[in-house]
Amino acid sequence: MPGNSWGQIFQLTTFGESHGPAIGVVIDGVMPLVPLCEADIQVELNRRRPGQSAITTPRAETDTVEILSGVFEGKTTGTPIALLIRNRDAKTEDYQKLKDIFRPGHADYTYLSKYGIRDWRGSGRASGRETAARVAAGAIAKKILAQQNIRITAYTLAVAGIYAKKIDLNAIESNPVRCPDSEQAQAMIAKIEEARKNNDSVGGIVEAVIDGCPPGLGEPVFDKLSARLAAAMMSIGTVKGVEIGSGFECAKMRGSECNDVFVEEQGKIKTKTNHAGGILGGISTGGQIKLRVAVKPPSSIGVEQETVTKEKKMTALTVSGRHDPCVCPRVVPVVEAMLAVTLVDCLMLHRAVNGPSK
Amino acid sequence: MPGNSWGQIFQLTTFGESHGPAIGVVIDGVMPLVPLCEADIQVELNRRRPGQSAITTPRAETDTVEILSGVFEGKTTGTPIALLIRNRDAKTEDYQKLKDIFRPGHADYTYLSKYGIRDWRGSGRASGRETAARVAAGAIAKKILAQQNIRITAYTLAVAGIYAKKIDLNAIESNPVRCPDSEQAQAMIAKIEEARKNNDSVGGIVEAVIDGCPPGLGEPVFDKLSARLAAAMMSIGTVKGVEIGSGFECAKMRGSECNDVFVEEQGKIKTKTNHAGGILGGISTGGQIKLRVAVKPPSSIGVEQETVTKEKKMTALTVSGRHDPCVCPRVVPVVEAMLAVTLVDCLMLHRAVNGPSK
Amino acid sequence: MPGNSWGQIFQLTTFGESHGPAIGVVIDGVMPLVPLCEADIQVELNRRRPGQSAITTPRAETDTVEILSGVFEGKTTGTPIALLIRNRDAKTEDYQKLKDIFRPGHADYTYLSKYGIRDWRGSGRASGRETAARVAAGAIAKKILAQQNIRITAYTLAVAGIYAKKIDLNAIESNPVRCPDSEQAQAMIAKIEEARKNNDSVGGIVEAVIDGCPPGLGEPVFDKLSARLAAAMMSIGTVKGVEIGSGFECAKMRGSECNDVFVEEQGKIKTKTNHAGGILGGISTGGQIKLRVAVKPPSSIGVEQETVTKEKKMTALTVSGRHDPCVCPRVVPVVEAMLAVTLVDCLMLHRAVNGPSK
Amino acid sequence: MPGNSWGQIFQLTTFGESHGPAIGVVIDGVMPLVPLCEADIQVELNRRRPGQSAITTPRAETDTVEILSGVFEGKTTGTPIALLIRNRDAKTEDYQKLKDIFRPGHADYTYLSKYGIRDWRGSGRASGRETAARVAAGAIAKKILAQQNIRITAYTLAVAGIYAKKIDLNAIESNPVRCPDSEQAQAMIAKIEEARKNNDSVGGIVEAVIDGCPPGLGEPVFDKLSARLAAAMMSIGTVKGVEIGSGFECAKMRGSECNDVFVEEQGKIKTKTNHAGGILGGISTGGQIKLRVAVKPPSSIGVEQETVTKEKKMTALTVSGRHDPCVCPRVVPVVEAMLAVTLVDCLMLHRAVNGPSK
Repeated sequence: MPGNSWGQIFQLTTFGESHGPAIGVVIDGVMPLVPLCEADIQVELNRRRPGQSAITTPRAETDTVEILSGVFEGKTTGTPIALLIRNRDAKTEDYQKLKDIFRPGHADYTYLSKYGIRDWRGSGRASGRETAARVAAGAIAKKILAQQNIRITAYTLAVAGIYAKKIDLNAIESNPVRCPDSEQAQAMIAKIEEARKNNDSVGGIVEAVIDGCPPGLGEPVFDKLSARLAAAMMSIGTVKGVEIGSGFECAKMRGSECNDVFVEEQGKIKTKTNHAGGILGGISTGGQIKLRVAVKPPSSIGVEQETVTKEKKMTALTVSGRHDPCVCPRVVPVVEAMLAVTLVDCLMLHRAVNGPSK
Repeated sequence: MPGNSWGQIFQLTTFGESHGPAIGVVIDGVMPLVPLCEADIQVELNRRRPGQSAITTPRAETDTVEILSGVFEGKTTGTPIALLIRNRDAKTEDYQKLKDIFRPGHADYTYLSKYGIRDWRGSGRASGRETAARVAAGAIAKKILAQQNIRITAYTLAVAGIYAKKIDLNAIESNPVRCPDSEQAQAMIAKIEEARKNNDSVGGIVEAVIDGCPPGLGEPVFDKLSARLAAAMMSIGTVKGVEIGSGFECAKMRGSECNDVFVEEQGKIKTKTNHAGGILGGISTGGQIKLRVAVKPPSSIGVEQETVTKEKKMTALTVSGRHDPCVCPRVVPVVEAMLAVTLVDCLMLHRAVNGPSK
Repeated sequence: MPGNSWGQIFQLTTFGESHGPAIGVVIDGVMPLVPLCEADIQVELNRRRPGQSAITTPRAETDTVEILSGVFEGKTTGTPIALLIRNRDAKTEDYQKLKDIFRPGHADYTYLSKYGIRDWRGSGRASGRETAARVAAGAIAKKILAQQNIRITAYTLAVAGIYAKKIDLNAIESNPVRCPDSEQAQAMIAKIEEARKNNDSVGGIVEAVIDGCPPGLGEPVFDKLSARLAAAMMSIGTVKGVEIGSGFECAKMRGSECNDVFVEEQGKIKTKTNHAGGILGGISTGGQIKLRVAVKPPSSIGVEQETVTKEKKMTALTVSGRHDPCVCPRVVPVVEAMLAVTLVDCLMLHRAVNGPSK
Repeated sequence: MPGNSWGQIFQLTTFGESHGPAIGVVIDGVMPLVPLCEADIQVELNRRRPGQSAITTPRAETDTVEILSGVFEGKTTGTPIALLIRNRDAKTEDYQKLKDIFRPGHADYTYLSKYGIRDWRGSGRASGRETAARVAAGAIAKKILAQQNIRITAYTLAVAGIYAKKIDLNAIESNPVRCPDSEQAQAMIAKIEEARKNNDSVGGIVEAVIDGCPPGLGEPVFDKLSARLAAAMMSIGTVKGVEIGSGFECAKMRGSECNDVFVEEQGKIKTKTNHAGGILGGISTGGQIKLRVAVKPPSSIGVEQETVTKEKKMTALTVSGRHDPCVCPRVVPVVEAMLAVTLVDCLMLHRAVNGPSK
């Protein structure tokens, strides 16, 4: 409960520091008899791992996963699945000189305030590296969702103010920025390369769509599907905003514009528009769920910055080391993973009370 | 756990339907020896109740609260506090004709999909009326925070595209739209009145600031303060987006712009700017926490809309009855309440593990 | 989470003090479409209420229940059900003189140690009266279990060392001590009357059987069915011991005696004996679940006792007022209620992960 | 939540099967700055490990623990601590022939009923081996309790009907049965040796005392300290009964005998007797907490037993392999571990709401 677990029934608990021996995750509540092997998980980890393209950090981690429990003869058994990823390419010496300095934008100061101690090696627990454990768990959730024909797709919608002009889901994995518009992807890459040359970084927007979600998921009042998904997104360290459907645009609309009119189509109830993003009253409508997250520019930059030390002395800081100039392409699989684990949990909770969703 | 509870230690459980006998809340985990009486709660309920001004719904509920337990000789005892609010002015006949129709933008269809039954009287459990129970619980949380000099203030930042141009916290309660800019408030009111005349409604943005929050609150990874606050906000039925600090603006920034530089001021560590909104790595910095939520235009509008019935027949719908043309002024106390209860819970969880925050 | 809630999916939260305005319970996670009215609940409350027979306390509470939410047109809606029971016959004056004295066997001293304040009127929150809220919730759980042909029956097995010599479930409600052996019931009643005449009280043993429980309920490791049921039982204030199946007798057995041999009977797998009490590895076998609880003699006795005051002064104490000389007959419905709510929760959790049990 | 986690703030999640790659535990909510190294944990694991004496199973596991996270420069950091124990001496061939047979007293049948699949190698997740992970977590809890002068001591009170006649805590670790009476220990060992020679097994009783526990721990109503401890005990696979204080003896007492009279001693409030076992109203009194658990005889015996196969055919079964003839000596550290982790959790929850206990 102190923050390292997620989900109520399909429940993950992650552990590990960036430069410690290993990171990993224990997943409880996985239904039995799901076929599962390490390769199923590795494919998702490879989408998140460092060094995958010219525009990501060159830290050379293969992020090789080992299944420690919960799988027998190629199938899940209903008992907890522990996944272990050893850290291989930690360069602690890069951080030695930063150990008494609070890096702007990082959690150095807040972790020390909270705990009175911090593992300064590679941001410790606050490192984005922790999300590898989430992606590993997400791979299992995705397998469960696929059995029910639920598909989650995230992509980079914008980088540094450059937006995708079309959404071609097939284009996403064909460019390193994971943009659904191959042409605009090039402009985004140019912006990222420019930032890197200037020892700087850029932010962006990641969008996600969920297709095939049955109506009825999400709980009323506090555990609305929207609330659960928003928390899932905001739990990603680099995310500073979340919107569902038309999101902040709704603030400017009239009710007569914003309301999605219901229609009957081939015996099913649908909506003509989707300003609500597939969620009404916190419960899924059966239509496409759509949301966007604001991704801040990475805080580790080579530009010289002022800051203070643990002893409250002013100092100048230049962060060297291996960093991402734009983290959107690697946030994409993390967003998918968090949506997947959250949705499986909602499915399970729904059927606990109501029986299977229709 | 099926959605009607919030918080892990300071934990509320709300109940009640819009047109049932009563709504209410049980709050567990309230620390003992806090002075508390019904008037402390009523003052907050009065800020949320219907009929408080010309621009809110005229439903005539006094929302009178009764304390059923947990208070003895004017002080909390550490046992659960149950608060009861009887429904007095329910006009069920307004809804009789809507009972087989799915109103656009409402939860009629999704509740029926989920449960196979729905209380159609005044939206039942999905009614905004449920938030009165949250405001009642929030009043207690605010008292606890005030003891620690933590102040939460929310206000209407924008309505229908009209923005406040200055933030004067003293102006908020002096105009019915709860805008911190008395002049722009008039323009907002005009927009709301115009919408009402057209049987329509308008959306807006509510912003909140938290002052006096100590550093160190929030848990790493999944229960980041930002994640908890985002979920708290998205659990309000009318909210479609949340951003912390500079939020979606961060997506366009470079790291060198977005990073908040640390400085030492009178022996304390502060930041020059506040793009992060007072939260780094999911943990409070000790600076001002700032966030915004997108409030959609109310779905109950008098304009004729197409929709479908339970039997999947097309029909035309005109929602009559008593509704808010813009819900921002009444969302303000709900935002404050949800921030308050969430923050108290974070404070308690922090001190459970780490002892008192400094 | 601070102790006034029970269950993970089918979740109750109780509130209220013995002499406050009311006691009650909110039950979340009730499946929709279960027929429910106040009479369904009242019948169970009547089995627990004071004044039901010559051997219970004469406090005259009708324990009339009001359904505040979650039921529409005679059926549950899936939203939380709040149940309210007003306190009618509180005689606070009986307690005025005890307000600074720690009664032996009661929670006066521990509540004050914990909270620094205590509601001394009729034991406040620590009163056995709180169990009325559990019985009310249990009535709903029993309806759900009945739909699945699961039956829970508790009875008084022993009072003051007098044991039932036969178990006739039909005899239970026909004698005021709720003993399944009408003859031994008379001996028990005599013991209780004798205790009362001596201003004293007696303890006993309540046994419960669950028939029709499908195999597979209970979770491995920490949330074993046995662990959940044991906690449920020990959460009843008056219970000092729990045993499942042969319980403490197992400590004296050899493995070859204690193991229940499996046999095939009409296509079903059963066990010849039932030392395990219907639970193996923490999971139900499909056989009869059987457990026993030790009920201590009520602490409120008229015999003079030594004790200390809040100011740590020695004093003599004689508790007058209206008390039960033996609480077993009234513990019976509480045991049933706690077993019922726990079992429904286990059923729901099981089907969340595994789908419906067979 | 599906059963492999324990605790609300100090929260452990265990994983692993008896014959899989590893077992382990993740502990969240550990307070920062506690000195911790692998040796601190190993010492407790050595008390539980197989092969430690002539009367335990000869399976040759060293149970070597590796700390994977949450410790930096010899101190806890407040982030989750993952502990890994590789399985080294699994002899799967012993179980191959049992894979389609339901062993009496074991969880073979119930796991298969629940999940539709079971890891039959060495009982899989249902193996007592899982408790090594609890003991590892318990070692950390014990360090935290020691800082507050809280001491937990468990011991074998009885084996096969032979009881300790005196309680000398210093004697416990000096005999292999962990009995506080060195003389009776010899009689117990003789009984165990006899059972082994007959290919049989014996049960017993383990008692535990907690000294130095402050008053005020435990939560009212459902999370009484007694309820939490009872669940902790019953979650140990081999335990069939729990009693607090005088336990089942209370059922035969009169109130005037059972009530523990309060007295003032050197400015502190104590009780003359301790029938309540140090817990009143579910909250610790500050006196010694005392409880006992019934330990069943191990189910793996060499005596031939009847049973059925997966295909519901009758068969005769002789369990060979390496087993404990009496598990009490190895249950002792598990009981201590579960009490320790539960008590730390109660301490943390108490101070979350009430501030530090006095």
